[in-house]
Amino acid sequence: MKTRAAVAFEAKRPLEIVEVDLEGPRAGEVLIEIKATGVCHTDAYTLDGLDSEGIFPSILGHEGAGVVVEVGPGVTSLAVGDHVIPLYTPECRQCKSCLSRKTNLCTSIRATQGKGLMPDGTSRFSYKGQSIAHYMGCSTFSNYTVLPEIAVAKIRKDAPFDKACYVGCGVTTGVGAVVNTAKVEPGANAVVFGLGGIGLNVIQGLKMVGADMIIGVDINGDKEEWGRRFGMTHFLNPKEVSDVVAHLVELTGGGADYTFDCTGNTVVMRQALEACHRGWGESVIIGVAEAGKEIATRPFQLVTGRVWKGSAFGGARGRTDTPKIVDWYMDGKIEIDPMITHTLPLERINEAFDLMHEGKSIRSVIVF
Amino acid sequence: MKTRAAVAFEAKRPLEIVEVDLEGPRAGEVLIEIKATGVCHTDAYTLDGLDSEGIFPSILGHEGAGVVVEVGPGVTSLAVGDHVIPLYTPECRQCKSCLSRKTNLCTSIRATQGKGLMPDGTSRFSYKGQSIAHYMGCSTFSNYTVLPEIAVAKIRKDAPFDKACYVGCGVTTGVGAVVNTAKVEPGANAVVFGLGGIGLNVIQGLKMVGADMIIGVDINGDKEEWGRRFGMTHFLNPKEVSDVVAHLVELTGGGADYTFDCTGNTVVMRQALEACHRGWGESVIIGVAEAGKEIATRPFQLVTGRVWKGSAFGGARGRTDTPKIVDWYMDGKIEIDPMITHTLPLERINEAFDLMHEGKSIRSVIVF
Repeated sequence: MKTRAAVAFEAKRPLEIVEVDLEGPRAGEVLIEIKATGVCHTDAYTLDGLDSEGIFPSILGHEGAGVVVEVGPGVTSLAVGDHVIPLYTPECRQCKSCLSRKTNLCTSIRATQGKGLMPDGTSRFSYKGQSIAHYMGCSTFSNYTVLPEIAVAKIRKDAPFDKACYVGCGVTTGVGAVVNTAKVEPGANAVVFGLGGIGLNVIQGLKMVGADMIIGVDINGDKEEWGRRFGMTHFLNPKEVSDVVAHLVELTGGGADYTFDCTGNTVVMRQALEACHRGWGESVIIGVAEAGKEIATRPFQLVTGRVWKGSAFGGARGRTDTPKIVDWYMDGKIEIDPMITHTLPLERINEAFDLMHEGKSIRSVIVF
Repeated sequence: MKTRAAVAFEAKRPLEIVEVDLEGPRAGEVLIEIKATGVCHTDAYTLDGLDSEGIFPSILGHEGAGVVVEVGPGVTSLAVGDHVIPLYTPECRQCKSCLSRKTNLCTSIRATQGKGLMPDGTSRFSYKGQSIAHYMGCSTFSNYTVLPEIAVAKIRKDAPFDKACYVGCGVTTGVGAVVNTAKVEPGANAVVFGLGGIGLNVIQGLKMVGADMIIGVDINGDKEEWGRRFGMTHFLNPKEVSDVVAHLVELTGGGADYTFDCTGNTVVMRQALEACHRGWGESVIIGVAEAGKEIATRPFQLVTGRVWKGSAFGGARGRTDTPKIVDWYMDGKIEIDPMITHTLPLERINEAFDLMHEGKSIRSVIVF
């Protein structure tokens, strides 16, 4: 079949909207009509050529929502008409990782996904006879895409696609880091470094679970209003204090119970750890650092009880937990609508990248 | 009263055995007759002048066992005749830390203890009219010493002092890191870096809780026999492989569930983290690093699910957990006897430091 898609032919060049060829689903795969997709920093990271493992040409996009239109042989958990979210972190429920009950990082198709291929080692996309790579196993910047059954979460039918798509990455990454990775308890004090989309979702996760102090930290004072909109109780602009860590330790009466780095800056990651309370404070790294950058601290920080950990896709098991987060949105426990600052047709997808680079959007969503 | 004690008059000089003056217990304090005390690397660290906060003159020693011979006003939890272990990590059960239920690092008397003083801000020890500092709140290199009630664990009376004293630091630090900090489950695979006294106690802790692979790592091949004696199943000499981390990841089929650094070397601490399994491996720092040294890694190690933490006094609550570890020893669940390689009278305490520096002892115990 043919489908309209935004193709990244090479790094550092705008996406091109073209008709590509798409093969139908093979065994264990499903064909999905993408109804909406978010544009995330990770897509930009790859398009800007910063990911040394980026593959071109490819169809980017990994934050979508849509409808199953065809199922391949052997597919049992999905049917035509199901509303779904594609998962860049699948959940096979069979591999060592899934069976460990300790991680969401299913490893069953990691090798092929990293190469831009389906699990059988081939691509379904091509353009003028040339193979085009899948991206993060999703390629949601295409009106139709093919995914393995294990990488598709079935969600309720009354959730709007142009909001539910954000659960495919940003919302789950932020809210999940609070709920699944840190397991924040009611009454806890927390600090969130970086008030972009991920930071705001961490904040609303903290609000949902009943945290007491929710302190936001950002060098851009304009973010304060955004933070307060989602539950932030205190704001700190690091430019306005001489010692960020000392200030936060003072403000929290000894250090935070939980801190979250949503900046990707390794200097900030250290501050986040050291702003934790002696004895039990836990710091969760969510942001993705520049290639080659390292985090550092004195080991005494850990020996005296601080814990340093990280979170990918919010520690959420794709098929099990993602639908619950959609439910939380539909039940009003978390918000998505005000975070979708721009909604654009596929033809204007390059504008979404510009808005993001200029810091003018929380999240832009493309609707087909 | 007068008591015989080994006094550290200044750094980098042998201890001197003299009769010092000791005031009796004030309110909330008890007088203890020390029957035996271990000599630990931390005592040597201070005596060698490596601790920038070391105080002189002082009476070192923090790994003792003895009998309560007098109680001060208001003491309710201890009586004359009780067999006890002095605690450098007290347990007041009232401070924010104790009440958090998340840490063993009671903070109620930290400030005065760090200054070598009793909680009321004075010392009980003096020599020729000059005040002598307490050390780690214990000063077990004295035949008699005074401690706050909250820093004394009551143990069973049939436990031999010259073995039980080792529970006051080394045994609890190692076994407790497994049981309290890492909470290792049966069937887990673990790696222990450094097979000194702490490492051996980590190993026997892992054996006790039913770990599968217990891999010991040491640059001294002679340690292999010691490790196997306490439950180590595999041994690795880093000098014999080109890449320690890659070797351990291969050996454990993807990385260890738990790793423990018992070396104090920050390069090894990084290896310990990176030898953990993606998704869930936890690395526990026990060793104390040189002043100014830092640990580092790529944040990707944490984002993909590894956890970096530390352990002090094995995460054990002094009064609650230490007596249980003595019970485990008396019940044969853990061993202590073969680790006590030397037993010496107080007059020969400087020999114990020499043995330790020369790597010739696992633990030397001084008996009074």
